[in-house]
Amino acid sequence: MPASWAMGRPTALLLLLAFLTPGAAIRVPPAMKALSSLRWSTSFTSRGTVAKKYSIHYIQQKVNHFGFDADKTFKQRYLIADEHWKKNGGSILFYTGNEGDITWFCNNTGFMWDVAAQLKAMLVFAEHRYYGESLPFGNKSFTDSRHLDFLTSEQALADFAVLIKHLKKTIPGAKNQPVIAIGGSYGGMLAAWFRMKYSHIVVGALAASAPIWHFGNLVPCGVFMEIVTKDFKRSGPNCSETIRSSWDAINRFARTGAGLRWLSENLDLCTALTNTQDVQNLKAWISETWINLAMVDYPYESDFLQPLPAWPIKVVCQYLKNPSVSDAQLLQNIFQALNVYYNYSGQASCLNISETTTSSLGTQGWSYQACTEMVMPFCTNGIDDMFEPHSWNLREFSEDCFKQWGVRPRPAWIITMYGGKNISSHTNIIFSNGELDPWSGGGVTKDITDTLVAITIPEGAHHLDLRARNAFDPTTVLLARSLEVRHMKQWIRDFYANQRKKH
Amino acid sequence: MPASWAMGRPTALLLLLAFLTPGAAIRVPPAMKALSSLRWSTSFTSRGTVAKKYSIHYIQQKVNHFGFDADKTFKQRYLIADEHWKKNGGSILFYTGNEGDITWFCNNTGFMWDVAAQLKAMLVFAEHRYYGESLPFGNKSFTDSRHLDFLTSEQALADFAVLIKHLKKTIPGAKNQPVIAIGGSYGGMLAAWFRMKYSHIVVGALAASAPIWHFGNLVPCGVFMEIVTKDFKRSGPNCSETIRSSWDAINRFARTGAGLRWLSENLDLCTALTNTQDVQNLKAWISETWINLAMVDYPYESDFLQPLPAWPIKVVCQYLKNPSVSDAQLLQNIFQALNVYYNYSGQASCLNISETTTSSLGTQGWSYQACTEMVMPFCTNGIDDMFEPHSWNLREFSEDCFKQWGVRPRPAWIITMYGGKNISSHTNIIFSNGELDPWSGGGVTKDITDTLVAITIPEGAHHLDLRARNAFDPTTVLLARSLEVRHMKQWIRDFYANQRKKH
Repeated sequence: MPASWAMGRPTALLLLLAFLTPGAAIRVPPAMKALSSLRWSTSFTSRGTVAKKYSIHYIQQKVNHFGFDADKTFKQRYLIADEHWKKNGGSILFYTGNEGDITWFCNNTGFMWDVAAQLKAMLVFAEHRYYGESLPFGNKSFTDSRHLDFLTSEQALADFAVLIKHLKKTIPGAKNQPVIAIGGSYGGMLAAWFRMKYSHIVVGALAASAPIWHFGNLVPCGVFMEIVTKDFKRSGPNCSETIRSSWDAINRFARTGAGLRWLSENLDLCTALTNTQDVQNLKAWISETWINLAMVDYPYESDFLQPLPAWPIKVVCQYLKNPSVSDAQLLQNIFQALNVYYNYSGQASCLNISETTTSSLGTQGWSYQACTEMVMPFCTNGIDDMFEPHSWNLREFSEDCFKQWGVRPRPAWIITMYGGKNISSHTNIIFSNGELDPWSGGGVTKDITDTLVAITIPEGAHHLDLRARNAFDPTTVLLARSLEVRHMKQWIRDFYANQRKKH
Repeated sequence: MPASWAMGRPTALLLLLAFLTPGAAIRVPPAMKALSSLRWSTSFTSRGTVAKKYSIHYIQQKVNHFGFDADKTFKQRYLIADEHWKKNGGSILFYTGNEGDITWFCNNTGFMWDVAAQLKAMLVFAEHRYYGESLPFGNKSFTDSRHLDFLTSEQALADFAVLIKHLKKTIPGAKNQPVIAIGGSYGGMLAAWFRMKYSHIVVGALAASAPIWHFGNLVPCGVFMEIVTKDFKRSGPNCSETIRSSWDAINRFARTGAGLRWLSENLDLCTALTNTQDVQNLKAWISETWINLAMVDYPYESDFLQPLPAWPIKVVCQYLKNPSVSDAQLLQNIFQALNVYYNYSGQASCLNISETTTSSLGTQGWSYQACTEMVMPFCTNGIDDMFEPHSWNLREFSEDCFKQWGVRPRPAWIITMYGGKNISSHTNIIFSNGELDPWSGGGVTKDITDTLVAITIPEGAHHLDLRARNAFDPTTVLLARSLEVRHMKQWIRDFYANQRKKH
């Protein structure tokens, strides 16, 4: 999900941080396939890429599940792929859609497609209200806080519950099958919360890269940017130090009109910098780029917003080896590094500092959610991280939210609603986290009980495990997926065993 | 709670059925006390009556926990009694207030007062929004569906969660103590649901006489009235048959103006009957009287709306021994029987058929709740029960609701939200039911798991176990309370054991 990197930024740019989901499947060379299928026979099939064939459906949902005054409904979109589904002994894998177009998540969650056959699973991808086509008030959905009033995680979970009851009622053979919730990032939080709040509807949840503790004081606000920094530190000598030096270099250039012109030209910006606010935006945009790179630091080439090489931070760090050169040289190196992210294909004619992420993500919707329920504190100190120091300022954040959306955040609410760290009474949730992923700082990375388990992937970035299998997958992610499948199979077995007991 | 006895009734009278909570403590004669303390040493103290000393507090709650557009708050009332509370090793018993003035529930839930000392417990009684003084929009709260839009069980549970977090934060010593939810009837459903949805906030729940399955098709719609009938059948020869015969007798009288006058005079009605609708109302009012009697068929004198004798149905049935007398004689006998309920004290000058229950209950609020979330199907067939046949007609019910409140019921919602019969993944809930209580038909009366347990009380009416101890308590209710305390002590021990493990 996008980090609410609001600290000292104009409200229009509140939420440009990218949240990047699993990328398209990469063709697996035959030799690697053989190796893989040898070692991971249960999770690999012989196909290198997975065809994404699904049907598109809509369900009428109440706009407000928690009130009866307005009895309006809207059309929620969902996708079904049942090629491998078996009515006898099968299962339903239910993707708890997050902040974006559901077809994008569907096409980018290769893991579900990869395991469908062995779990005899129907795949369902449910779009989150206020994203993609699932707009409660059509193109008026974002006009004001009145129309946005039904954009909450609770309403989204209720949509999912109603949808599953509907599927079980209308699809012959689905009624007596176990449903497993799967999601990544915010969708991972939803998957975990769905199991917590609707344990009668899903038998378990795989919550990948779900920072359910990135709220209140549950984790230090600096943890996210410290992990970003660590990723750069480990990817090349002096890399994080060079980035740390760059901020002052920019500040020094920004003191004069000539300096601003130099920056605009040498960074190839589409729009020239003219004032202090522009410089703030530039630094925020560069920060977000480093953050995005940390999230998508995958071990193989991938293609999101724009194509990226394997281990992109290593590539970036090749340009950032020396923090002690002149300001001009240092910033020209930074520009080379930025180009790895923004212009790997070599086709960008200039860089646009108002964009960092794919248009498939609903940045408006997430901005509102971050301003209401999803209040995630972020901070930097410039010592444990490579960024300019910014403290977390809730009051300022609240003012920005009020200006932008006419609402105030309720930072304690999510913890009251979903339990914070006190969740041990729940069962059957897998929390998976990549150690390279900055979001892992707010995630569950240690087992809580036998059935609330943590899986960590040392070489993993943002929910690498949910991506399609790839020849360059590190062993640790193969292990993680294998464990995840083992748990899911156990939940399915338990479900059928209980069902037999009843009859 | 009031049963939504809507079948064929005018909407104004939708919900007059009484829901009666535990009555005031009765003085225990010394001899009985000795006997009791011998056999139930853990649950009895030497005091005969319990003084209800509490302090009154208010907390600002969000009117809408699930939306951010309107950021309005209201004052929720709650009561605290901490005479027996120990900061060291103590506990918090939290009464999940239901549809009425919280002071009434506080004064009528003697069980909590009786066990406070042995559990070293602070007692908290939280008023349900839209009842008592806890009105989100003051005296405008019931003006229309817009103002009523925040009257739901989900909002009420959220109030409870926020309140407990507030108490733990503000009362020194409360932070690291286990909280147990306790409630009866609708409050019992709330207690159970509270544990299901907020298991991080309460370690367990005692749900007394909570008909959590009286929704959809989970139980037959006739079960409630069958139990009412059984109560009359067992309380005297020909008693239920006599009542069954009375409806036709009334119908025959109602055919003529003279008959209507005869009925009005002989039944001592405050307002004379003039038309068919009045006669419908009369029969509904009589039915509700029998229902109320079934709920409060306690083994000792009690004083609710009006004073009642011990085993009131037995007293009533003394007048209803012969179904084969003339219509006039039969109805005069019915009148004698009604007087047991309405005029035990002998002070009523006439009977008012628009009232059956205490004014401490918020009938308006419950009527709205029954028309939205709390859709409980009731029906009779005149064969398995002693009433005129009425089928459950959702469409008609929905029309009535729309006319009265401008809202439509969503009969499937509660099951989607709270799981219906599929609740085995939860833990630490006691479902207690009296077998005389018509609500037990929609309750959990068999163990679901080791920690989702059912306690049945053969001689118990509506949550007898929550009432103050009484010398005439049947052994089965003493046993029930003793078991309840044993479970609660176990939850408290588990909580402290877990806490020690963590530190």
